[in-house]
Amino acid sequence: MMAESAAGSKRIIHGGDLDAARADFPGAPEPWVDLSTGINPWPYPLPAIPADSWARLPGRSAEAALREAAAACYGAPSPDCVVAAGGSQALIQILPRLRPPGTVAVLGPTYAEHAAGWAKAGHRVSEVMSLESCGGADVMVVVNPNNPDGRIVPPKTLLALADRQAARGGWLVVDEAFAEVAPHCSVAAEAGRAGLVILRSFGKFFGLAGVRLGFLLGEPALVEASRAAMGPWAVSGPALAVATAALSDAAWIAATRRRLADAAARFDAKLAGAGVRVAGGTSLFRLIDDPQAAGLYNELGRAGVLVRRFDYRQEWLRLGLPADKAAEDRVKTACGMFKNR
Amino acid sequence: MMAESAAGSKRIIHGGDLDAARADFPGAPEPWVDLSTGINPWPYPLPAIPADSWARLPGRSAEAALREAAAACYGAPSPDCVVAAGGSQALIQILPRLRPPGTVAVLGPTYAEHAAGWAKAGHRVSEVMSLESCGGADVMVVVNPNNPDGRIVPPKTLLALADRQAARGGWLVVDEAFAEVAPHCSVAAEAGRAGLVILRSFGKFFGLAGVRLGFLLGEPALVEASRAAMGPWAVSGPALAVATAALSDAAWIAATRRRLADAAARFDAKLAGAGVRVAGGTSLFRLIDDPQAAGLYNELGRAGVLVRRFDYRQEWLRLGLPADKAAEDRVKTACGMFKNR
Repeated sequence: MMAESAAGSKRIIHGGDLDAARADFPGAPEPWVDLSTGINPWPYPLPAIPADSWARLPGRSAEAALREAAAACYGAPSPDCVVAAGGSQALIQILPRLRPPGTVAVLGPTYAEHAAGWAKAGHRVSEVMSLESCGGADVMVVVNPNNPDGRIVPPKTLLALADRQAARGGWLVVDEAFAEVAPHCSVAAEAGRAGLVILRSFGKFFGLAGVRLGFLLGEPALVEASRAAMGPWAVSGPALAVATAALSDAAWIAATRRRLADAAARFDAKLAGAGVRVAGGTSLFRLIDDPQAAGLYNELGRAGVLVRRFDYRQEWLRLGLPADKAAEDRVKTACGMFKNR
Repeated sequence: MMAESAAGSKRIIHGGDLDAARADFPGAPEPWVDLSTGINPWPYPLPAIPADSWARLPGRSAEAALREAAAACYGAPSPDCVVAAGGSQALIQILPRLRPPGTVAVLGPTYAEHAAGWAKAGHRVSEVMSLESCGGADVMVVVNPNNPDGRIVPPKTLLALADRQAARGGWLVVDEAFAEVAPHCSVAAEAGRAGLVILRSFGKFFGLAGVRLGFLLGEPALVEASRAAMGPWAVSGPALAVATAALSDAAWIAATRRRLADAAARFDAKLAGAGVRVAGGTSLFRLIDDPQAAGLYNELGRAGVLVRRFDYRQEWLRLGLPADKAAEDRVKTACGMFKNR
C-alpha cells in the first residue's frame, strides 16, 4: 500500500466524485444523493461578501482577523500559533517538506493523503495499527477522531506522546479534521506545545468544502515556516470573509453540533431498521462494517446513492449524513431491498 | 539582494498593503486610493455562483471545464497543457521543487518572488540584466511583459531560448502575469513545447485578485507533476465557477483590453500634465522614473494615494490605474503640488 501511495496522490480514491459514479451507474436516478464525503449537508449560511474580497489581494488585517477567530473557535492559546492555508490538504503537502527525510508512522487505516504526502517528500513511511507499534518514528500521524472508523485517542495520551516526540526532536501530527463534532477530544488548547502539530479543516463541519480552507496550529516557528512555504496570499478573499464570520458564530456552532449528533443517531436507527449495522464514525459520517458491503455499494449506486468504499477493507462503507428525509429514505429503501433479497 | 531573497518571502515588499500605508500616513484622507498593485480596477462582474460551488469539494468536471476555458482563452493547444492553482504565486513556490537544485538566471529587475522561490528550494540564483548574460543557467526566468518596467522580450526570441534550454534539459519559465493586455507577446500558443513553462495569472486582468487563481502551461508531464505537488482540490469552487465564465467571455475581454489601453493613455497624459514622466509599464500599471520619486511617494501617501516603490531602484514608482476621475485627480493634484513646490 505504501508503494502505491508513494507514487503520488492521483491514484488515491476520494469521495465526492459524482462524475465517476454517474459513469459507473448510468441508469441511476438523478439527482444523485452524495454521501461519499464527511461534509455537513447543512452549510453555514453565506454572509454578505464584500466586493473587495473578490477584487483585492487579501490584506494582512483580514488574515489576522481570521487567525484570531480560528484561535478563539478552536481554543488555541494565541493567533501566533495559527496559520491558514487553502485547505488542510495543502498543509498535508507542505508539512513533510519542513523537516529532513526521516521515519514516519501513520496510525492506520486512515486518510491516505498523509502517508502519500510524507512518502512523496522522501520519508520512510509505515502504517501502524496501534500507537504502541510506532517504534520511535521521527514523526507520528494520528487522525483524531479517525476517518473512517471514528476511533478516538484520548487527549492525555496524545499530549504525553507529543512530549515524548518533542524530547527526541520529533513531531506528533494530529489531524483534527472532524474534531468540531468531538471537541472534548481536541488538543488545540495545547497548540504551541513543543512537538505538537495540529491540522484543522474548515469545510467539513461548516459544510463549505468548496471554500478550500484549513489551518495548522503549532509552535510559532513552524507556523512561520509553513507560511513561508506557501508564499503570500494563500487563502482567497471570499474564504477569509466567510470563515471569519462562521468561526465566530458560537450559537450556530453549538446548534450544529446538536443537529449533527441528532441526525447521526436518527440515521443509525434507520440503517438498523434496514438490517445494516453502524460500527463507528463521527456525527459527520457513519461507518458500516458488513461482509456484504460490496454488494450493498452497488445496490446503493443503482439507486443513485454514492457512498465511500475502501480498497483496503472490503467490508467497510462510509456514509455521510443525508440532507433530508427523501435522501434518508432512498438509502433505507436500497439497504432494505438488498438485505431482504 | 539574493541572500535576502533566500531568507524567505516574508521580507519581500508587495503592493496592496493598505494597513501598512495607513500606519505610515496617519493623517491621510480616507478612503485610500490604492494604486500599488497592477490589478484591473474594473473587475469582471461576478456571475451567479451555485451553492454547490461553496458546499461541495470541487469536482473533476468543473476543473476540466476551467482548464478548457483557460486553454481557449490563452490560445494553448490543449487543456492537457494546463493546470490550475490557487494563484500563480502558489506555482512560483512549487516549480523550484520540481527539479533538482541547479543554476537559475532571473532576468531582472522583476517580481522578487521568483528569485526567492528558487533560492529557497536550494538553487543557485543570479539576477541578470540581459538575456545574453544568462550564461547557460539550467533555468531561465523571464517575466513578459516585465513587472515593473513593461519590458517585452519578443516571442521569437523566447521560443529560440526555450529550444536551447530544452536541448540541455533546462527550462525557460515565462511569467505572463500581465500578458492579457499584450496578447501579441504571449507564447501560450506554444504551450507543451519542450523546455517551455508558462505562468498565467487570473486575478490581474479580470480584476479579481482575491479569488486566488493562476495557471501553469507546459508539457503534460510537468502539468501532472505540478498537480501532484499541489494535491487534490487546489482551487476553490467559487474560483472555478467565476473564472470559467470570465475566461470564456471574449466580448468582455476584448472590451477590457481597449478600456485599459485608453485609461493608461489618459493617465499618462494627466501625469505628464502634472510634470511627471511615465517611462514604461503595461496597460495595467505605469512606471514613473523620476529622481524625486522618494519625495513624490510621500506626497502621494499624505494625499491617501498608495503607490509601489522599489528598494532596488529609488527613482522608480509603479502606479496602477485609478478607478475613476476622482482618484485620477487626487493623483494629479498631489503630483502637481509636489512638482511645482
